[in-house]
Amino acid sequence: MLNFELYNPTNLIFGKGQTEKLGQLVPKNSKILLAYGGGSIFKNGVYDQVKAALEGFEIVEFGGIEPNPRYETLMKAVTVIREQKLDFILAVGGGSVIDGVKFISAAVHFDGNPMEILHKRLLIKENAMPFGTVLTLPATGSEMNSGAVITINETQEKLSFGGSALFPKFSICDPTVIASLPKRQLQNGVVDAFTHVMEQYLTYPHDALLQDRIAEGILQTLVEIGPDVVENPTDYKLAANFMWSCTMALNGLIQKGVPTDWATHMIGHELTALYEIDHARTLAIIGPNLYRVLFETKKEKLAQYGERIWKVTGETVEEKATQAIEKTVQFFHTMGMDTKISNYTLDYQKTADFIVDRFQERGWKAMGERQNITLEKVREIVEMSY
Amino acid sequence: MLNFELYNPTNLIFGKGQTEKLGQLVPKNSKILLAYGGGSIFKNGVYDQVKAALEGFEIVEFGGIEPNPRYETLMKAVTVIREQKLDFILAVGGGSVIDGVKFISAAVHFDGNPMEILHKRLLIKENAMPFGTVLTLPATGSEMNSGAVITINETQEKLSFGGSALFPKFSICDPTVIASLPKRQLQNGVVDAFTHVMEQYLTYPHDALLQDRIAEGILQTLVEIGPDVVENPTDYKLAANFMWSCTMALNGLIQKGVPTDWATHMIGHELTALYEIDHARTLAIIGPNLYRVLFETKKEKLAQYGERIWKVTGETVEEKATQAIEKTVQFFHTMGMDTKISNYTLDYQKTADFIVDRFQERGWKAMGERQNITLEKVREIVEMSY
Repeated sequence: MLNFELYNPTNLIFGKGQTEKLGQLVPKNSKILLAYGGGSIFKNGVYDQVKAALEGFEIVEFGGIEPNPRYETLMKAVTVIREQKLDFILAVGGGSVIDGVKFISAAVHFDGNPMEILHKRLLIKENAMPFGTVLTLPATGSEMNSGAVITINETQEKLSFGGSALFPKFSICDPTVIASLPKRQLQNGVVDAFTHVMEQYLTYPHDALLQDRIAEGILQTLVEIGPDVVENPTDYKLAANFMWSCTMALNGLIQKGVPTDWATHMIGHELTALYEIDHARTLAIIGPNLYRVLFETKKEKLAQYGERIWKVTGETVEEKATQAIEKTVQFFHTMGMDTKISNYTLDYQKTADFIVDRFQERGWKAMGERQNITLEKVREIVEMSY
Repeated sequence: MLNFELYNPTNLIFGKGQTEKLGQLVPKNSKILLAYGGGSIFKNGVYDQVKAALEGFEIVEFGGIEPNPRYETLMKAVTVIREQKLDFILAVGGGSVIDGVKFISAAVHFDGNPMEILHKRLLIKENAMPFGTVLTLPATGSEMNSGAVITINETQEKLSFGGSALFPKFSICDPTVIASLPKRQLQNGVVDAFTHVMEQYLTYPHDALLQDRIAEGILQTLVEIGPDVVENPTDYKLAANFMWSCTMALNGLIQKGVPTDWATHMIGHELTALYEIDHARTLAIIGPNLYRVLFETKKEKLAQYGERIWKVTGETVEEKATQAIEKTVQFFHTMGMDTKISNYTLDYQKTADFIVDRFQERGWKAMGERQNITLEKVREIVEMSY
């Protein structure tokens, strides 16, 4: 087991009707920026619940944070906060809104050009504006971690950053919100959470036994409830297990003490930046092909995953590992994912060139848990995904 | 899934050599009470590591916190802190020292008679003195939770209390410390952690699927490494998995959203108070008999536990549940536990009377996840344990 530090001070408030507690969670006399996305909170009743719970607080609203939140949009919110001297941010939305609010939180008091936070991938350990969240779309785990991914419109870059000052003070997770979500978003959420676990689990065999068991527990739960929850989002049992699995997949716990990969995300982010393919769908495209290209160094863990999650049997590690990849692709198809780039854009022929060039520009040479996913391997993975 | 709140701000620092970081973790210019137990930290090198890491800090030492820490002893530490105007406490020890320090932390600024904290089971939400821990004995999870159990010598009562102000600010968990522990303490640690999970898991079937999977992951890991770690405590792989399982068993995570029992602990505490039987051993005595007496209402979960952890097979729920209990007893025997009260004291004949009387005095009528463990059932469980 690798040495690790586990620190997660977010107060997570989970369950039916918990939004009512908002008024006790926001610090007294706060002047709040209420940040949200495209306006679904007006249709699903969450906006009304939030406003009712915050009666008496001074609130300035800032809507329009887009999926894959844009630096340019978020800087407008920073200006609003500075001009109106606000001192608390409430993110009401999914991972994009929460990620966006993390950037706003870091940028408001940042001494310098806030774009440096992204380009230099600065660790934000202090001077962040406090914020809380009301989660409306389970998927990214952003409600209980300190990381975020922001897109710069001008350069079409999707970049990540974070730091211990960027944990939400609180997050309200009411599983009933998923009842009104479009099927596509629910499918995305399941696959997103599933791949988050895989990035932290599907590496090589190590001696952190309990971490593997917990990761497998999340995968198993997602496999068990994923296909049903998208059909029956009003079923509270399914909704609650879905929401809790998404949070647990990326609240930091399962990565403690183990090697992690994250190359599927790094490549996937570029597909979103280039073609606006939904984040989760880029993961469903890249993940299985990454396992194929890295088969030799991932096959032991693939076999363990196959046996424990998919109950595959076989004579050899290779057989079991191969079946495990096929089961994963089938699962993604069951979850409504197209798993080829050409399903999303006709203009895909130069995708590998674009991505490899961009990684080269950033000085990236290799990635993955063994740092053996070279740019040549990246090219192979992307071309296999056409 | 039941509604829940998850809040755990302890900064857990896990791994080999982490004690070196102590100097950066304790707030600058702190005047520290260094609290410890019977002096094993002088033999295993931890005292020297701690002192080296805290060079430059003002330190007052307070040793002699006993297993099942005594109110009377802890109040002496409170006096030392008040007289010498100390402002930080460092617990160096196992669960008893850490539990003791939680009481000291709560009592120092308490307005009134600190015994009320125990008798009224007060929730300590503020005004606690900050403290950190260096864990030397994995078992209780006290290093990452906000609860404690204290014994009042005068009345032979063992009482629990806690509150959100009683999370350690940090806890250093270095698995190499277990190399020098007596076998008996390692055995106790495994059974203690195992029973902690059972209290939060072995209730009735519910729809919190992921919580069950995580609980089962901890049980599985303890079953896998328990018998080996007591024989090979210098094996880092075993030690690390043992230590991490103990923390995860009682850091609050697996109890979120599910019913919990805790009656094994409530009865077990009395056996320790009456006969000074090691805490873990009281759990090994009571647990299986509690499952037998409550068989009808616990059998479904017993069967699930039996199938998933012990791979029992059988025609009926009853068969599988019965085998699950037997497997548990066998496991406790493998871990060196005697599982009858008469193995520990010859003077056991009135134990059930004592315990039932004491529960009655406190006004307790029933316990357990269904509140169906009446005092009559308690009597039956204890008598079955003679």
